[in-house]
Amino acid sequence: MRLLVINPNTTAAMTEKIGAAARRVASPGTEIVAVNPAHGPAAIEGYYDEAMSLAGLLGLIRGRDDFDAVIIACFDDTGLDAARCVTEKPVLGIGEAAFHMAAMLANRFSVVTTLGRSVPAIEHNLTRYGLMARCGRVRASEIPVLELEDPASDACARIGAELGRAIIDDRAEAIVLGCAGMTDLAQRLSETHGLPVLDGVVCAVAQAEALVRLGLTTSRLGGYAPPRR
Amino acid sequence: MRLLVINPNTTAAMTEKIGAAARRVASPGTEIVAVNPAHGPAAIEGYYDEAMSLAGLLGLIRGRDDFDAVIIACFDDTGLDAARCVTEKPVLGIGEAAFHMAAMLANRFSVVTTLGRSVPAIEHNLTRYGLMARCGRVRASEIPVLELEDPASDACARIGAELGRAIIDDRAEAIVLGCAGMTDLAQRLSETHGLPVLDGVVCAVAQAEALVRLGLTTSRLGGYAPPRR
Amino acid sequence: MRLLVINPNTTAAMTEKIGAAARRVASPGTEIVAVNPAHGPAAIEGYYDEAMSLAGLLGLIRGRDDFDAVIIACFDDTGLDAARCVTEKPVLGIGEAAFHMAAMLANRFSVVTTLGRSVPAIEHNLTRYGLMARCGRVRASEIPVLELEDPASDACARIGAELGRAIIDDRAEAIVLGCAGMTDLAQRLSETHGLPVLDGVVCAVAQAEALVRLGLTTSRLGGYAPPRR
Amino acid sequence: MRLLVINPNTTAAMTEKIGAAARRVASPGTEIVAVNPAHGPAAIEGYYDEAMSLAGLLGLIRGRDDFDAVIIACFDDTGLDAARCVTEKPVLGIGEAAFHMAAMLANRFSVVTTLGRSVPAIEHNLTRYGLMARCGRVRASEIPVLELEDPASDACARIGAELGRAIIDDRAEAIVLGCAGMTDLAQRLSETHGLPVLDGVVCAVAQAEALVRLGLTTSRLGGYAPPRR
Amino acid sequence: MRLLVINPNTTAAMTEKIGAAARRVASPGTEIVAVNPAHGPAAIEGYYDEAMSLAGLLGLIRGRDDFDAVIIACFDDTGLDAARCVTEKPVLGIGEAAFHMAAMLANRFSVVTTLGRSVPAIEHNLTRYGLMARCGRVRASEIPVLELEDPASDACARIGAELGRAIIDDRAEAIVLGCAGMTDLAQRLSETHGLPVLDGVVCAVAQAEALVRLGLTTSRLGGYAPPRR
Amino acid sequence: MRLLVINPNTTAAMTEKIGAAARRVASPGTEIVAVNPAHGPAAIEGYYDEAMSLAGLLGLIRGRDDFDAVIIACFDDTGLDAARCVTEKPVLGIGEAAFHMAAMLANRFSVVTTLGRSVPAIEHNLTRYGLMARCGRVRASEIPVLELEDPASDACARIGAELGRAIIDDRAEAIVLGCAGMTDLAQRLSETHGLPVLDGVVCAVAQAEALVRLGLTTSRLGGYAPPRR
Repeated sequence: MRLLVINPNTTAAMTEKIGAAARRVASPGTEIVAVNPAHGPAAIEGYYDEAMSLAGLLGLIRGRDDFDAVIIACFDDTGLDAARCVTEKPVLGIGEAAFHMAAMLANRFSVVTTLGRSVPAIEHNLTRYGLMARCGRVRASEIPVLELEDPASDACARIGAELGRAIIDDRAEAIVLGCAGMTDLAQRLSETHGLPVLDGVVCAVAQAEALVRLGLTTSRLGGYAPPRR
Repeated sequence: MRLLVINPNTTAAMTEKIGAAARRVASPGTEIVAVNPAHGPAAIEGYYDEAMSLAGLLGLIRGRDDFDAVIIACFDDTGLDAARCVTEKPVLGIGEAAFHMAAMLANRFSVVTTLGRSVPAIEHNLTRYGLMARCGRVRASEIPVLELEDPASDACARIGAELGRAIIDDRAEAIVLGCAGMTDLAQRLSETHGLPVLDGVVCAVAQAEALVRLGLTTSRLGGYAPPRR
Repeated sequence: MRLLVINPNTTAAMTEKIGAAARRVASPGTEIVAVNPAHGPAAIEGYYDEAMSLAGLLGLIRGRDDFDAVIIACFDDTGLDAARCVTEKPVLGIGEAAFHMAAMLANRFSVVTTLGRSVPAIEHNLTRYGLMARCGRVRASEIPVLELEDPASDACARIGAELGRAIIDDRAEAIVLGCAGMTDLAQRLSETHGLPVLDGVVCAVAQAEALVRLGLTTSRLGGYAPPRR
Repeated sequence: MRLLVINPNTTAAMTEKIGAAARRVASPGTEIVAVNPAHGPAAIEGYYDEAMSLAGLLGLIRGRDDFDAVIIACFDDTGLDAARCVTEKPVLGIGEAAFHMAAMLANRFSVVTTLGRSVPAIEHNLTRYGLMARCGRVRASEIPVLELEDPASDACARIGAELGRAIIDDRAEAIVLGCAGMTDLAQRLSETHGLPVLDGVVCAVAQAEALVRLGLTTSRLGGYAPPRR
Repeated sequence: MRLLVINPNTTAAMTEKIGAAARRVASPGTEIVAVNPAHGPAAIEGYYDEAMSLAGLLGLIRGRDDFDAVIIACFDDTGLDAARCVTEKPVLGIGEAAFHMAAMLANRFSVVTTLGRSVPAIEHNLTRYGLMARCGRVRASEIPVLELEDPASDACARIGAELGRAIIDDRAEAIVLGCAGMTDLAQRLSETHGLPVLDGVVCAVAQAEALVRLGLTTSRLGGYAPPRR
Repeated sequence: MRLLVINPNTTAAMTEKIGAAARRVASPGTEIVAVNPAHGPAAIEGYYDEAMSLAGLLGLIRGRDDFDAVIIACFDDTGLDAARCVTEKPVLGIGEAAFHMAAMLANRFSVVTTLGRSVPAIEHNLTRYGLMARCGRVRASEIPVLELEDPASDACARIGAELGRAIIDDRAEAIVLGCAGMTDLAQRLSETHGLPVLDGVVCAVAQAEALVRLGLTTSRLGGYAPPRR
């Protein structure tokens, strides 16, 4: 099985980290192809970056047939609906995958993301997926996406502090990390705080494998019908 | 006052029709500049077309300062959030404008749009705006967007039939027409069926004038903050 | 165009302030007729005052035909539904108008009103309009309505403090001022706090002009049908 | 125990029927005082009638202390909030009482009311009480209120037909009759259709007795605080 | 009238306290039969205890006909749906009864329960009943159920402190006590804090009497149909 | 990896069919242990059967440590919450698993189940999971559970007819089959009707493998904490 994992921003170091995280959890026989568009924003921080990454993102999917499922490795689930229209294969967003898995482990989860400017887009997705009622709060650590790539940053400590507030104030029973760049922090935070901490990248790999094994594909009726022209 | 009215598809005849409709309701002293991108889909029929129109659409806004407000003249409110990040001026979607106005005229409204494939995107918007509870049903007439440009089409009759079902089955007290290309049908349908029939293009012109007169602009705090880079 | 602006309480100084605010934003050619009932409560502070103002309020509308739209200038949108049954002209509440406009400028808004006793009625309206999900919190400054008429009051500072909490704690991107008597504070608060601050009186004037220009009137089907007897 | 049962319309025959129904279910020792205002609408059919009945309705409560609880015997729960502000005694609406009791007997109920014009006000109440999700549909039999007082009418048959549709189409497990004037039809319809059919008048009597026996009274904190002046 | 009041845990002292509370509010002529299963958990603290009490609980109802209504005296409304399938008589949960009564006395109520582990089950019930929107917050005092039976405990003070926070932070206008073992604290807390404090046991007695007097029984259509075998 | 698949009813033929379906989709190296309780209802058709199966169901989980995850193979997700309290391993309901997967393939899905009496329990789960908004309608085919085991039955045709109505009337883009006993019909119905048809048994196997591979386990904070005694 081949999974096309698309980092919709152009930061190759992040693509590599995402690819490595995906490979660590992929089943034997699953090949991870981690790619990013050649052009577009270096990080997806808000609605405008999302919009400007779409042409590059969809260009990496359209017309190809050498994969079994697509993962969009941006926590905003950038372009998820459009991507579902251009391929018959399953397409998963890492936000969506993490939300659904958290909902099967906990009565309530909270999200800890990067900047406050990304919070409305994440809340918008949760509302639409139906899962806002399962979410205590979408919290911002105010750490820019690319600072997560800096080994000298104290990002993990600041994310951990926000996570502690989620446990107390939101009664969160699980935490979803709200950025593909946090993929390497989940296990440490889970051990420190004693609750499930979900990273969307690995959740999406597991969900993609699940859909492919069951032979399930995106519906072609209604909203995800292929483009008419 | 200058309003930039963007038809995000590339069909110039439709841009012209939209511009004319906007001019008919604009106040004296309001100039309507109706434009469309040079490249992109000829009609917006579903999520993929929406995504592919964004770069062109945002390119028409970004870096310009010669207008007082922007109207996105596609009923899906394509790119509305992203557009709000790239200009300090108010930005209105025609779907949004019509929903809010219908909510001030009727206890419940229904939407009559073009193809069934566009229904989920419209429902998604209504859910997010908070107005799904005010909407009886989003109905598809199964008329493609460009057929609305064909004078020989029986589109108006078919839309009228769907509208009649909305009155009976949904208890709709008002109707929102779900496509910029239906802008010339609203008055006739309203007279025939005896209830308010709202076209998003003229609603958005009126809302844009309202915001500009009050000196209100999009919030720069949170989700609509300008792009960081 | 003539707009009938009704302050449903009997405090003439407040009617005057409301009328002046309305005139400042009215378009050339729009005449503002600001009135209040001769009898009834001096301020609308809660459900009972609302109820006791209705006969006077509706008496100012019923049977008249010398206006193009009606504005009910009480933030509780007192008698809005009943008023829509007794005139064919559009009727707008100032709460409603401000909520809908805030929803086109910000992902989330909070309301700052007068007394805590008015909060449930405002929440009730937001729930019913569908816009509760867009509202962070309805906050009370605990300033009585008529204290807003006292130039020596520190009302503006106390409202500003509440507004600051809304930005931090509710992640509000815009603020709606929850009393017609606050109409003169909006601009100052907006400049100080750097976000849109909406006053319902001016929002309703702009919305009334918008509806009148488009020739839209309240639906006569269903809940707003004229009284049978 | 003395229960003040207020029919907010001025039709004495209906007040009498309501009083008789209340007495049939009242406990020994409970006195029913059924009254109606001297002036106001002869039937409450929509928002305007509701508004015009309020002054009379509240005048029957304010300043009196010779009762233990108040019942507002109009299915729209006319003036319920305002009434709670002017007495320390419990106040119940017949709509509210029936909805809450139906919710303890069935997974889902439907409402069968008089005219379509009353449907939005009932839906509005259900939404606000939180019980819309428990309601399949609010159905109109299109029988005017006063026709229910006419012994020659086929009202019961028409209501029964609507009730049958509610069982099939809405999967209703119980029915709430949506008008005080239907109080004498409940038992017959329940026997014919084999499911609980609730009349608000008797439900409110039972709820009022329950509150009085437990010594519970309306909260004075927040929205139901007594009027300030 | 005979009411079967079932404490689904096996702690006889608690059954006795519940029975005594029920008797204090029962009408003359109402007999309270308070029982508990012979086997099962000593306290219901969370989902597992709920499940393990069901066989005992249902065994106390099934096949008996010597009562007029059943009360399940556990705030989680343990087994309420199943119990409704095995008897034609009305069945009430004490949580449900208290929520519905609080909703007729206050715009918003909060719940103060025992342990945090019980909060999700209570929220789950509120969501399903439709009343979550009426509830400010479900708060845990972190007092184990059986400590409520210990006269030396400072439980009342700790519950009172939580109740004070509900008034300030949640704008609660009424409080629902979230455990059958708190039945003796309601009046004292109500007097101290000046708002309605509802205990589910007495609410359920009053509701059961109300249903029996009106001759209303659980629907046999749909979800509460008797078991097929 | 060893998955404990529990059919909570006592019909061994159904357990076998469920086990076979699970094995067909399990990954190499995954062992399926399909079991059912020795005592309890022969089919789970409504709330009472659910309750009566719990002791047997939980007895199959408690105190064992020879599995990596548990699947509850009843579409009502019988005992799911309680089961999560008695094991550290992930526990999945087949209803839940199918709903979450359908939500990643389609904008809207409908459910086709067995008897109408099971519909409220399924709706109750959807509401609580947050996914009711994604579901068009829960439809009953009125086929009893055990008839699905009868090869001479025309069950598949009747389920197919209901499925066709879901596509037209609900605008369903995917179908979830609402009974473990329908596990062998999914593929045929999917091919006939041209949309994804999801069976909960295979969905739960794939989800269980996903959770185990990622090392994720049920939260021990809050509602799923282990029993205190």
